[in-house]
Amino acid sequence: MSIDSRQSKMECVIADNVTLPPNCEIGSFVKIYPNVTFGSNVTIGDFCVIGQKGPKREGDLDGLHIPDNSVIRSHSVVYAGSTFGSGLTTGHHVVIRERTVAGKNLRVGNFSDIEGDCEIGDYCRFHGYVHVGKGSRIGNFVWLFSLVTLTNDPLPPSHIQEGVTVEDGVVVCVGATLLPGAHIGRGVMVSENSSVTGKVPPAVLYTTGKSSIPITKVMNFRHKLKLPWQNHFRDAYPDDAQESLETLRSEIVSDTKKLRAAATKE
Amino acid sequence: MSIDSRQSKMECVIADNVTLPPNCEIGSFVKIYPNVTFGSNVTIGDFCVIGQKGPKREGDLDGLHIPDNSVIRSHSVVYAGSTFGSGLTTGHHVVIRERTVAGKNLRVGNFSDIEGDCEIGDYCRFHGYVHVGKGSRIGNFVWLFSLVTLTNDPLPPSHIQEGVTVEDGVVVCVGATLLPGAHIGRGVMVSENSSVTGKVPPAVLYTTGKSSIPITKVMNFRHKLKLPWQNHFRDAYPDDAQESLETLRSEIVSDTKKLRAAATKE
Amino acid sequence: MSIDSRQSKMECVIADNVTLPPNCEIGSFVKIYPNVTFGSNVTIGDFCVIGQKGPKREGDLDGLHIPDNSVIRSHSVVYAGSTFGSGLTTGHHVVIRERTVAGKNLRVGNFSDIEGDCEIGDYCRFHGYVHVGKGSRIGNFVWLFSLVTLTNDPLPPSHIQEGVTVEDGVVVCVGATLLPGAHIGRGVMVSENSSVTGKVPPAVLYTTGKSSIPITKVMNFRHKLKLPWQNHFRDAYPDDAQESLETLRSEIVSDTKKLRAAATKE
Repeated sequence: MSIDSRQSKMECVIADNVTLPPNCEIGSFVKIYPNVTFGSNVTIGDFCVIGQKGPKREGDLDGLHIPDNSVIRSHSVVYAGSTFGSGLTTGHHVVIRERTVAGKNLRVGNFSDIEGDCEIGDYCRFHGYVHVGKGSRIGNFVWLFSLVTLTNDPLPPSHIQEGVTVEDGVVVCVGATLLPGAHIGRGVMVSENSSVTGKVPPAVLYTTGKSSIPITKVMNFRHKLKLPWQNHFRDAYPDDAQESLETLRSEIVSDTKKLRAAATKE
Repeated sequence: MSIDSRQSKMECVIADNVTLPPNCEIGSFVKIYPNVTFGSNVTIGDFCVIGQKGPKREGDLDGLHIPDNSVIRSHSVVYAGSTFGSGLTTGHHVVIRERTVAGKNLRVGNFSDIEGDCEIGDYCRFHGYVHVGKGSRIGNFVWLFSLVTLTNDPLPPSHIQEGVTVEDGVVVCVGATLLPGAHIGRGVMVSENSSVTGKVPPAVLYTTGKSSIPITKVMNFRHKLKLPWQNHFRDAYPDDAQESLETLRSEIVSDTKKLRAAATKE
Repeated sequence: MSIDSRQSKMECVIADNVTLPPNCEIGSFVKIYPNVTFGSNVTIGDFCVIGQKGPKREGDLDGLHIPDNSVIRSHSVVYAGSTFGSGLTTGHHVVIRERTVAGKNLRVGNFSDIEGDCEIGDYCRFHGYVHVGKGSRIGNFVWLFSLVTLTNDPLPPSHIQEGVTVEDGVVVCVGATLLPGAHIGRGVMVSENSSVTGKVPPAVLYTTGKSSIPITKVMNFRHKLKLPWQNHFRDAYPDDAQESLETLRSEIVSDTKKLRAAATKE
């Protein structure tokens, strides 16, 4: 059952104008719609739908490019009309709708749903059951843990779409809800199951309605961990991300100093 | 790769007694069980399971009718033994179990799970990851946003099933939990992440344990929106729903007047 | 469309070294990887992936055994390298990763995700959208209701993995979050949407941050139900579980007596 392009052609439904590069691994029962192109070293799992057409708007991209070194796990659906940097990685049963503009090495966990019409920076990590509503703007190195929901309707149901903004290096812990128009500053950690409204200043620990302490005061004594997370987790990223991560770390530390200076004045 | 009934027959597993009407679009790798019938203008996405048999009880319907103008998106599973009004629309990876009795134009978002043995009125809208437990009774024009869960077991695990009731025009915001036996009156808005128990009077804004203010006092100044939502969102529905929506709106407004009158007496 | 091994071979992709026993029901479009073996009376739904390889560590099991009387529902993914007792039952769209070591008759609901590297006892019941993080240790007769999340990272993101422990007979109600390192004693009920940290003593009702009353004081007057749940729900389990359930029930009752004795002393 070694899978090569020839065999997979038999078990898959692949549009006539699609070419599978030789180093591309395509699972069984994969559906690939027209105008999909592939970078090198791409893996597509079984039962995926790649390049399905959503409703189009003027100026939309036609087709879809799955970039170099991407891994799309089984039962995922990636619509046409989005762009991704290299190394896109999805879990199983992921849905990504049209007009998602994502940077390098986005990783999306099982059962997550990116609703499209959104921007996502480089090296973002989303765990399972994450819902990114339309109009969301997400920076670089952002973590969204399981069940985090990014909403957009300020008085649902309405015709208004007021997406959220999540700046670089933000960590949103499990189960948090980002309410319409929320704007989370650089390097913030949002604690689990919080609801976020309004503007959260950079580099704080945030719990529902409260920007409590500077992020550099958060630590785990038992495991000798101290925020910001770039202190102890930078090595999980590839070489070309190291410089940006170090810059981000020092910016966040500098943000906390401004916070303290402001607090002292008061 | 234009899909017609002839081609799709090759890629799909369709029971012998099933006939696909000519204007029906069936995706690739679709499994259709026996005794499924189709209205006109139906679209079934790739990798769907249509008409699977669950455990049967006496008097159950045999088979399944997918009504006119339905769209079932990829990787969805619709069991036999349910009934739907025209225009059923599902997202991807939706599960609908047997003995669901739903009205016109039900729309169910990605990863939602309707567990069967339930009633759903006309024009309901469920977003993603919505869980409708057995025994739920849902009126017309109801909105359930992402991660809303309708439970039914009052002291889990037990053999008791005490479903929830959600009346016409109710809006349940993201992440709310409807606890067993909850009864939500007409036109209520349940705020995000609330837990609902007991009886909620009509036309109020409800936050965990608190029926606070009449719905007509809720507004969004920035966007000039004012509840009830039928004020500003009626145009999202088809022509044949307009009269019912206007009636519902005036009933909800009238409910709030009764609330105020009662409050004044006290 | 009666499915037998011969027919299913045509619609499925099954590795050369896999043998389907005659009393095994395999759906359509099933992908079975090499080194998967089957007990008797197994049902695999449509569009499942069985025995996919994850990243391996030294000493890992090769392949996967689907034990007697298992039912894997459609669109589920079970990785190689796990072990299960007989009667494994999954809902639709379930993911179970490598190095899951589970006992008899595990039942996992729709859209649940068992991330692997975990231990699960006999007769556990997980409802939908349950997330079991790596490093979790779960006893026998445990109930995890919808949207329950078992986390493991004490200061995310980090390299530390501090799984949770859930002892025998625990019930975790809908939407609760088990924070890293949480240890829940035998027979506890965690109320809906709670966050659990630290050590919870046995046989109490737990609500965020509070081990309130002994479990034997919890009752539902209307339905004449009284905890522990083994009082009224033991009959839902097969004969061979009855003795263990009765032992567990009396241990939990005895735990509550110790709780009261300790409270009296204070």
